[in-house]
Amino acid sequence: MTSARDSVLVISAHAGDFVWRAGGAIALTTSRGGRAMVVCLSYGERGESARAWREGKNLQEIKAIRRAEAEAAADILGAEIRFLDAGDYPLLESQELVDQLVHVYRETEPTLVLTHTLVDPYNGDHPAAARMAIQARILAQAVGYEAPGAPLGAPPVFSFEPHQSEMSQFHPDVLLDITDVFEIKRKAMESLPAQQHMWSYYTDLATRRGVQVKRNAGPNLGISDGTKGEAYMRHYPHVTDRLN
Amino acid sequence: MTSARDSVLVISAHAGDFVWRAGGAIALTTSRGGRAMVVCLSYGERGESARAWREGKNLQEIKAIRRAEAEAAADILGAEIRFLDAGDYPLLESQELVDQLVHVYRETEPTLVLTHTLVDPYNGDHPAAARMAIQARILAQAVGYEAPGAPLGAPPVFSFEPHQSEMSQFHPDVLLDITDVFEIKRKAMESLPAQQHMWSYYTDLATRRGVQVKRNAGPNLGISDGTKGEAYMRHYPHVTDRLN
Amino acid sequence: MTSARDSVLVISAHAGDFVWRAGGAIALTTSRGGRAMVVCLSYGERGESARAWREGKNLQEIKAIRRAEAEAAADILGAEIRFLDAGDYPLLESQELVDQLVHVYRETEPTLVLTHTLVDPYNGDHPAAARMAIQARILAQAVGYEAPGAPLGAPPVFSFEPHQSEMSQFHPDVLLDITDVFEIKRKAMESLPAQQHMWSYYTDLATRRGVQVKRNAGPNLGISDGTKGEAYMRHYPHVTDRLN
Amino acid sequence: MTSARDSVLVISAHAGDFVWRAGGAIALTTSRGGRAMVVCLSYGERGESARAWREGKNLQEIKAIRRAEAEAAADILGAEIRFLDAGDYPLLESQELVDQLVHVYRETEPTLVLTHTLVDPYNGDHPAAARMAIQARILAQAVGYEAPGAPLGAPPVFSFEPHQSEMSQFHPDVLLDITDVFEIKRKAMESLPAQQHMWSYYTDLATRRGVQVKRNAGPNLGISDGTKGEAYMRHYPHVTDRLN
Amino acid sequence: MTSARDSVLVISAHAGDFVWRAGGAIALTTSRGGRAMVVCLSYGERGESARAWREGKNLQEIKAIRRAEAEAAADILGAEIRFLDAGDYPLLESQELVDQLVHVYRETEPTLVLTHTLVDPYNGDHPAAARMAIQARILAQAVGYEAPGAPLGAPPVFSFEPHQSEMSQFHPDVLLDITDVFEIKRKAMESLPAQQHMWSYYTDLATRRGVQVKRNAGPNLGISDGTKGEAYMRHYPHVTDRLN
Amino acid sequence: MTSARDSVLVISAHAGDFVWRAGGAIALTTSRGGRAMVVCLSYGERGESARAWREGKNLQEIKAIRRAEAEAAADILGAEIRFLDAGDYPLLESQELVDQLVHVYRETEPTLVLTHTLVDPYNGDHPAAARMAIQARILAQAVGYEAPGAPLGAPPVFSFEPHQSEMSQFHPDVLLDITDVFEIKRKAMESLPAQQHMWSYYTDLATRRGVQVKRNAGPNLGISDGTKGEAYMRHYPHVTDRLN
Repeated sequence: MTSARDSVLVISAHAGDFVWRAGGAIALTTSRGGRAMVVCLSYGERGESARAWREGKNLQEIKAIRRAEAEAAADILGAEIRFLDAGDYPLLESQELVDQLVHVYRETEPTLVLTHTLVDPYNGDHPAAARMAIQARILAQAVGYEAPGAPLGAPPVFSFEPHQSEMSQFHPDVLLDITDVFEIKRKAMESLPAQQHMWSYYTDLATRRGVQVKRNAGPNLGISDGTKGEAYMRHYPHVTDRLN
Repeated sequence: MTSARDSVLVISAHAGDFVWRAGGAIALTTSRGGRAMVVCLSYGERGESARAWREGKNLQEIKAIRRAEAEAAADILGAEIRFLDAGDYPLLESQELVDQLVHVYRETEPTLVLTHTLVDPYNGDHPAAARMAIQARILAQAVGYEAPGAPLGAPPVFSFEPHQSEMSQFHPDVLLDITDVFEIKRKAMESLPAQQHMWSYYTDLATRRGVQVKRNAGPNLGISDGTKGEAYMRHYPHVTDRLN
Repeated sequence: MTSARDSVLVISAHAGDFVWRAGGAIALTTSRGGRAMVVCLSYGERGESARAWREGKNLQEIKAIRRAEAEAAADILGAEIRFLDAGDYPLLESQELVDQLVHVYRETEPTLVLTHTLVDPYNGDHPAAARMAIQARILAQAVGYEAPGAPLGAPPVFSFEPHQSEMSQFHPDVLLDITDVFEIKRKAMESLPAQQHMWSYYTDLATRRGVQVKRNAGPNLGISDGTKGEAYMRHYPHVTDRLN
Repeated sequence: MTSARDSVLVISAHAGDFVWRAGGAIALTTSRGGRAMVVCLSYGERGESARAWREGKNLQEIKAIRRAEAEAAADILGAEIRFLDAGDYPLLESQELVDQLVHVYRETEPTLVLTHTLVDPYNGDHPAAARMAIQARILAQAVGYEAPGAPLGAPPVFSFEPHQSEMSQFHPDVLLDITDVFEIKRKAMESLPAQQHMWSYYTDLATRRGVQVKRNAGPNLGISDGTKGEAYMRHYPHVTDRLN
Repeated sequence: MTSARDSVLVISAHAGDFVWRAGGAIALTTSRGGRAMVVCLSYGERGESARAWREGKNLQEIKAIRRAEAEAAADILGAEIRFLDAGDYPLLESQELVDQLVHVYRETEPTLVLTHTLVDPYNGDHPAAARMAIQARILAQAVGYEAPGAPLGAPPVFSFEPHQSEMSQFHPDVLLDITDVFEIKRKAMESLPAQQHMWSYYTDLATRRGVQVKRNAGPNLGISDGTKGEAYMRHYPHVTDRLN
Repeated sequence: MTSARDSVLVISAHAGDFVWRAGGAIALTTSRGGRAMVVCLSYGERGESARAWREGKNLQEIKAIRRAEAEAAADILGAEIRFLDAGDYPLLESQELVDQLVHVYRETEPTLVLTHTLVDPYNGDHPAAARMAIQARILAQAVGYEAPGAPLGAPPVFSFEPHQSEMSQFHPDVLLDITDVFEIKRKAMESLPAQQHMWSYYTDLATRRGVQVKRNAGPNLGISDGTKGEAYMRHYPHVTDRLN
């Protein structure tokens, strides 16, 4: 049902998350003429930049590096990107930040929202980002909430895959076939040179989720051996007029 | 993604279940040129025919009545129907019955399977039917299982809505918009005269699930006020190449 | 075990909630000579007044309208009502608000507490209200907490039914037979003219829960066809000296 | 709501279970003029008679000993008792056994059913007994099920407390105040001389559950320091016309 | 694998908790030459000092009493102890408090962390303490987090046993054999004279958990009749090179 | 705590499972002088031998091939192996089969038991094997159960990792460091030539679980970059006298 009017909004705690975890979904949307907006609540400057700190970089340098990398990756994926620079480790929830997200919702009118899981025992910033993404979506739907633009519809929300899925109560409700755009995702990953070990990790993950695409696909779909996949977890019921 | 090749297989414990709980999904499939096969493991002659017993009918009479009613309803929905006459209250699980289901799977090559929930504290036949439906699907996929026809693909399986959803651990993963075929479902319900109070019950339920269709639908969908819905719970991950 | 000393405390996020969701429990208590106190944390002025906003009313007008309606409904149910005017969408949790609730607990000495569910993916204000209701109950029990009155006993706490029960992890632990007071609840609902579509929605819900009352009642109870019910979820174990 | 018409049916896997785990509920019922029927599916001759085996007793001797002890305990509690002698370790589920239970249901018309938990990783006989108790209750409700007597109403079902509650997913939904009859339960326990260490274990448990009775009781109840309790888990919603 | 380098960090909401719930684990560590550090976020001056308030003591007096008692108990257990005096009932979460905990983590380099459960419907301070303990552990691991000392490793985290285990979703993942140090724990308990009824309560609990130690231990372990135990719940997977 | 007396019992549905899923645990035990016994309930002749069927082999040939392969792999791992030849797809539960397992338990006196998960929506044989493994363990503990040998102690039971962990409710309670024996496991895998694609799949999995070993290990353990791991889920509480 994707159309040129499609608009995916990705709300992530740190710069980089959107590439590894949702790059396929973003590229699928933009390759079909839809719009993608990535909001990075922080640059991941403290919690996800261990190498840069060890190399003696300072806070401003690290933010600048991560911003440039994320912009390059977004560019490859065909996505717009914004940075709210709210700080990480910890990413503190605040009503101001939620309000900024409400404004983004009203402005971009997403037809699809991607964010972190609500549980992650290894990273408190991820659930904090997810809680704010969901709260802002609810507020943006209210006529009485003061922010420019019309009240939001009810776009579906998905959690993308966390690092340790079983520990984060992640259940793969949807296996997304990203075969057609995997080369684009791979290129976007390669624009993040500081985390080269992640390139093969997420290529392998795409292959494994691709195997599950085949294992769970009905006979209708012509699935090839090189299938690549991304896993997602739904927050709300799937509304459809076709069960398969 | 429904096409003329679509084939829905409905496996239910008793005659009648398929009308109330899955009539919309069946009619959507057949109205689009797909095939629907309903398998009734029993007639519901003991557990779901209280009125007939109270009227003094005997076992054979009750079976005949329920069979005729179910055939009429299937006809309206455009579905084929088979009766395995395995008895109800209790519906006893057996390897013979599972084997019969494997044969049906191999013969009909369903692209979609609908059955009961795996939990139902009010009716032991429902989970028994669901367990056999799922076991047979797994067996039918094995090359080494001896039954005519080719090994099955991996059709998605859904539970349709039980009577007391919260008590049966039913989670509405999918809300199916059945507005376009609701009149057909209503007619099929009306061909079951012994349970007239169910007509309005299931019309009301369709309206309530329709309200949730609207409440959960993204802005992409033009949903009207008279929307009717059916709720389903997925057993396996949804394989797709589009998240919305 | 209700007696003239009974005192039900209802803590709700918005004005109106107490009528739709707990009107029967309130009327049962007051009709038997007990006391009912309703605390509305907000008027629901932003999130639950879409029509008024669309009609061009301003914030103060909307608050006044909703206050008047809620007072009229409380009057019909025989309940006292207080408004804390803490704002909605979002209802922000604060220690000041919790402290106000502690004072209400100490003052009213409830024998029964009704509030929202702790999970509601469609409305963040509901869980926020429930969390504060429960925290205040714990604090009010402590001798060392500074507030007028004696330390609280341990009144049972129930969640009333949310809009989308399965999505809010609502489990109907208790089905309350409200047949005897349903006409009073209906009148209270009719005093909320802006939400006329809710009158029939909640009448239907009462009928459905009434059917479950009959389906789950033991042979001891003489349950008639017109039975009406409300569903509740317990937070703490039920203390009793009789299992049925 | 207990009255002279009350009838509690206890379905347990082994002789003895009903004393330790439900003796208080039984004594409360009979002390108020109600009827109690205990059905022991087996004597616990293999799995719960380690001492007797070690002493060199043979199978028939062990069965006779346990039968006599259970009869003595039932007598003290004022309960009738039946032994189905279906064997233990393992207690095998069968349709014949379920049918026997249906006959007991139809004959005794219980207003309350007590049985084991559906989960117990330490003892497979306990869940087997619980599954049969619940299946038989459903069958006994069906007009079309052939057994003497009228179709059953819908008596509430409770699981009594297993040995390792957290491992058996036991949730104490109800804390029963058994203070008034605890001396009777104690005497019944003392009629089981082979398991003398259990006397103090279950007296201590009654004290601990009694402390929780006090900790969870609202201000309405006058609970003394010597309160004794038993914990139960509900299978179906509680139907009532009073929340407290 | 405990060695002289072992360092256990106990983070508890109130003074006293560490004795009742984790005294055995602490004594085991120190008796083997390891280090134990207890951090009390508050003195439990409001919520856990009912007797002192009833005796008319004021806030400063109560804090002093509880501090002295906790220091005496820590001394017996061979543990260091610190008091953050953050207030209780409610214990308010703050980033300042979390930051203090990060400093403690970096300073003590724990190889083991013990804290409360994340759920406790009877006491909001317990989950608040657990959430802060876990958040601080994550932050202390980040190179980029500014605090003295090296980034933390990933010490395992356990919840000790809450008062009402089933209600707090406590699952006994680990049963710790504390037989060898139980006399030390008992002495530490006896240094808290205001709560004398707890001495026998926690001695009985140690006996019951000891029975479960025997019931769950493989044949490898020589477990005696007087075995004492403490139960713990793991937050992260157990890393080991031996399954038994 | 592994010693020369250690004895691991692996109960698996099909030949081959023990190599992919538990080869590391087996090799760790035998490399330290312990004993390993593998029981294959079937050869996996129907459900896990698709290639052989497609090549036109008959049932007896397929059984012989799989038996030879499994024996070769067991030999490399230093394990004994037995085949019960109970058939697969479906593996039917029977009391005879459980009794055979009781005999194995009594004979081998395992100190550790490894089997499948109790949930697996893709393969009904796996839960069937796990249920029988657990039932037999309980029966073998009973003095009164007639089988040669002494009543069993209570060896810990673990589920090894299923194919689709999140769908099978698999929670990685234990991460086993198998680095030291990984080369042996790899060789054992290579003795199963028909499933060459599994060699790299399970090598990759071992690497991924190895990364989690490092991510979850406390500072005590010297974990290198090439760490390999296997994940396990515990059925019973871990009994120990050291928390780390």
